Amino acid sequence: MVTSHSEAAARPQGAAAPRRRGAVLERAILEAALEQLSTVGWNGLTMEAVAIGAQTGKAAVYRRWPSKVDLVADALRTGFPALEYAPDHGGVREDLYQLCLRVRAAMYSKPGFALRAVLHECDHDSADRFHELIFSGVIEPSQRLLREVIERGIARGEVRQDAAHELVCDVIPAMMMYRSKVCASEWTDAELAEMIDRVMMPLLRP
Amino acid sequence: MVTSHSEAAARPQGAAAPRRRGAVLERAILEAALEQLSTVGWNGLTMEAVAIGAQTGKAAVYRRWPSKVDLVADALRTGFPALEYAPDHGGVREDLYQLCLRVRAAMYSKPGFALRAVLHECDHDSADRFHELIFSGVIEPSQRLLREVIERGIARGEVRQDAAHELVCDVIPAMMMYRSKVCASEWTDAELAEMIDRVMMPLLRP
Repeated sequence: MVTSHSEAAARPQGAAAPRRRGAVLERAILEAALEQLSTVGWNGLTMEAVAIGAQTGKAAVYRRWPSKVDLVADALRTGFPALEYAPDHGGVREDLYQLCLRVRAAMYSKPGFALRAVLHECDHDSADRFHELIFSGVIEPSQRLLREVIERGIARGEVRQDAAHELVCDVIPAMMMYRSKVCASEWTDAELAEMIDRVMMPLLRP
Repeated sequence: MVTSHSEAAARPQGAAAPRRRGAVLERAILEAALEQLSTVGWNGLTMEAVAIGAQTGKAAVYRRWPSKVDLVADALRTGFPALEYAPDHGGVREDLYQLCLRVRAAMYSKPGFALRAVLHECDHDSADRFHELIFSGVIEPSQRLLREVIERGIARGEVRQDAAHELVCDVIPAMMMYRSKVCASEWTDAELAEMIDRVMMPLLRP
């Protein structure tokens, strides 16, 4: 567990933090990195400040992550809500809706915000690495689950036979990103439901 | 017309540039601003350098545009390819395809690239102004033309009656932005055609 700032402040100066190893220390470092990202951003984040935040030494950070990009990429990746299982409520409409709620939760999670901030600030080469992270952490799992929902719909005869196409699976993430990006507005539950009724259901019908 | 750099260099030092007024001078300033955006970006652009680029004085620039944001917004707006008339080839599939080609041209035009660079660099308040510009200069016209294409399709009986909905008109711009953003890849002609066949035609069919 991460020692909180107030606990650290309450400890007499010079008293060492409890010695943590392996996974516990690793998690403390990753959480300190996320914390730094959300306060001082990509440009402000230093390995030293992360080490201080995690109450460890810089060497302990560098031993695990040779660079700031590696550390931040891992912090974001491990922080994302998992998109592992497709919803399965017996109907394509409800399953799509539940899936949209989960994708939205990932977009507006702490690592989701941090990732957008990082992409805004970092240089071109690092951006490539983080784009890959969005792809493998959010896009790819969303598409995989969407395909699962669509394929179950096809099996039930609810969805046309040739609908499980990559481009069809892009529509929901594209629409969600588009509005939050271009219109700078979030999706309410009702808007997600309307998008499914106006776009996805007509697109999928047999 | 804008006097080119080489002409300016060939003129003896101290010789004044030909006196231009009104629309001609204005265009020279706007072109110099676009030129600055594509070379030194938003952060590097100064009103002074724009004035030099347009071979005029700083006062002439400030008289028309009180701030850098105003100037850049106008430079981008006037530089965008016009999206005025919807394609009308007698069929919804071909019309959508032609419209996609035009939207792509706007996205990858010089002002299109400049606008993305600006959004990447500028602060939050200015970004709002430029988001508004994307909306009024590209998104809004694209949606209007898409709606026109869809409504003509409805009139011909090619498209279902309730398809001319805002969310349906969002699908093409959303898909185009999504791939160029997330997958960092451009749309080829064949990919645009596939998107229309796999997504738009099934979505619109009666």
